Amino acid sequence: MAGAFGLKGCQKIRGPQIRNLLATKDFILFDCDGVIWNGETAITGAVAVVNSLIRRGKNVVFVTNNSTRPRENYVHKFCRLGFTDVMLEQIFSSSYCSALYLRDVVKVCGQVFVIGCDGLRRELQEAGIPCVEETDEPNATIFDCALAPDVKAVLVGHDDKMTFLKLAKASCYLRDPDCLFLATDTDPWHPLSSGRILPGSGSLTAALEVASGRKATVIGKPSRFMFECISSQFSGVDPAQCLMIGDRLQTDMLFGSNCGLDTVLTLTGVSQMEEAQEYSNSELTSDRSLVPDYVVDTIADFLLAFDELEEQSN
Amino acid sequence: MAGAFGLKGCQKIRGPQIRNLLATKDFILFDCDGVIWNGETAITGAVAVVNSLIRRGKNVVFVTNNSTRPRENYVHKFCRLGFTDVMLEQIFSSSYCSALYLRDVVKVCGQVFVIGCDGLRRELQEAGIPCVEETDEPNATIFDCALAPDVKAVLVGHDDKMTFLKLAKASCYLRDPDCLFLATDTDPWHPLSSGRILPGSGSLTAALEVASGRKATVIGKPSRFMFECISSQFSGVDPAQCLMIGDRLQTDMLFGSNCGLDTVLTLTGVSQMEEAQEYSNSELTSDRSLVPDYVVDTIADFLLAFDELEEQSN
Repeated sequence: MAGAFGLKGCQKIRGPQIRNLLATKDFILFDCDGVIWNGETAITGAVAVVNSLIRRGKNVVFVTNNSTRPRENYVHKFCRLGFTDVMLEQIFSSSYCSALYLRDVVKVCGQVFVIGCDGLRRELQEAGIPCVEETDEPNATIFDCALAPDVKAVLVGHDDKMTFLKLAKASCYLRDPDCLFLATDTDPWHPLSSGRILPGSGSLTAALEVASGRKATVIGKPSRFMFECISSQFSGVDPAQCLMIGDRLQTDMLFGSNCGLDTVLTLTGVSQMEEAQEYSNSELTSDRSLVPDYVVDTIADFLLAFDELEEQSN
Repeated sequence: MAGAFGLKGCQKIRGPQIRNLLATKDFILFDCDGVIWNGETAITGAVAVVNSLIRRGKNVVFVTNNSTRPRENYVHKFCRLGFTDVMLEQIFSSSYCSALYLRDVVKVCGQVFVIGCDGLRRELQEAGIPCVEETDEPNATIFDCALAPDVKAVLVGHDDKMTFLKLAKASCYLRDPDCLFLATDTDPWHPLSSGRILPGSGSLTAALEVASGRKATVIGKPSRFMFECISSQFSGVDPAQCLMIGDRLQTDMLFGSNCGLDTVLTLTGVSQMEEAQEYSNSELTSDRSLVPDYVVDTIADFLLAFDELEEQSN
């Protein structure tokens, strides 16, 4: 659709253009971190934008690679930050989608060894998938620790309690070619407000890929699987009528490209305009898949489009 | 030189051929793990081979990517396993060479943040290089932990006490483009006698490369630097008169290729003949660099060459 407006490829859009774009879309897919909030602070204007879209009858869903909390906790966070109309069914996290993949796609029979936070483990358990119990063995090593006999998948997510022993155990499980190797996402790192950075699941996944000599199947963005989850749970999802809004070229924009969605990059998170333009000038098809169709400074730019819509409808 | 015997490229050699090969070589470079010992057990015949070579006036050196112990401990291990003639000066470990690189090549001014075992830290300290003190902060996180102000290099080696916090700290230090990023080696994993595997430095380095978005400078094999260390400490080292004996194509054989040395693969460790032949049949130059010139079943095959030498000299 974007081509119809003569704007495709990294174009800054404003009020009337945003309004025209929204008029052609039924489903609005939002990334969370860097798009509607940063940590525990909502991006200014994001609450009004999300609530307005829902009130106007758009299907709004949230697609996040953050695997650290179960969806219930997301509902609480949305509510806490003022997004009071968001319901569980609108939230597609990489942990939830990993559980769906294990339960419905590969129908795993056996335990899953999880490198990840409790939230990831909780999401699997809610889907009825047994996880290897983490035992507290302060002096155990890979030379003498116990290994579970029936591990049929290793799942790597963000894990701020990652240890060498967990990495070694996972490497051992993956020697069995029938043991699946999944990653919630491959985000390399996340910015912290202090200027520090937090290694992401992609960092831990890379360690395990090298140690095991295998490649992980990625559940989260930019893989198409999250879009398949949305399509299976909402009726009439047409990629041409979906808009993906995110802050990271390598995950959100590529996800949009991979799924045939129009994309909007918002500049309140990780990726900036210069990087998008560099990819835009590249001759590699793989680079051009990272280029957003549209760019806004912030999600708050959508408010102007609504104001004009209000005026029109008055 | 190998071409002169019409054998170059993955050729199994035996007594007389080994004798002819040794006759052209002054320096014999041995990898350790999988070549002269496996863990705490010497490979049968290895002691006799090493001692015979030294007694015959060959320069014998050991080049190991194992960064876990300082060279002194290696001397003890050599002695314990029966290699009684091996001296400190013959041992080139990736930890020792990392210390030389930091002290003599980049002349680091400031502290080094080490992901590695105590042995690596000890080797640096003996070279006068200050390392960031590891503090025991069981509840610290990257959100609130202290970071040293003057870290000028991050060095990653094998670390069986690796934690997420260490990875996160290293990622933060590497945000400073003036902070060097070094890896003792990139060995992906190591086999254990139990059939389990131990993730190697390469696994931890990959995690940090992804989290930092940077590439590590590799000190150990297959990088040429270890050979430069040998050349700087022995006089008259001519690559044409050196023989590299190892068990791993991706480190030992490639190291030999990178340094212009003839190579012997011994089949008592990681790599097997089939893998070597696959690379041998490849059309990629990069693959062909992994192919050994010669192959022996075990280092003990060298004994036959000596027997014949003895017979000749009698």
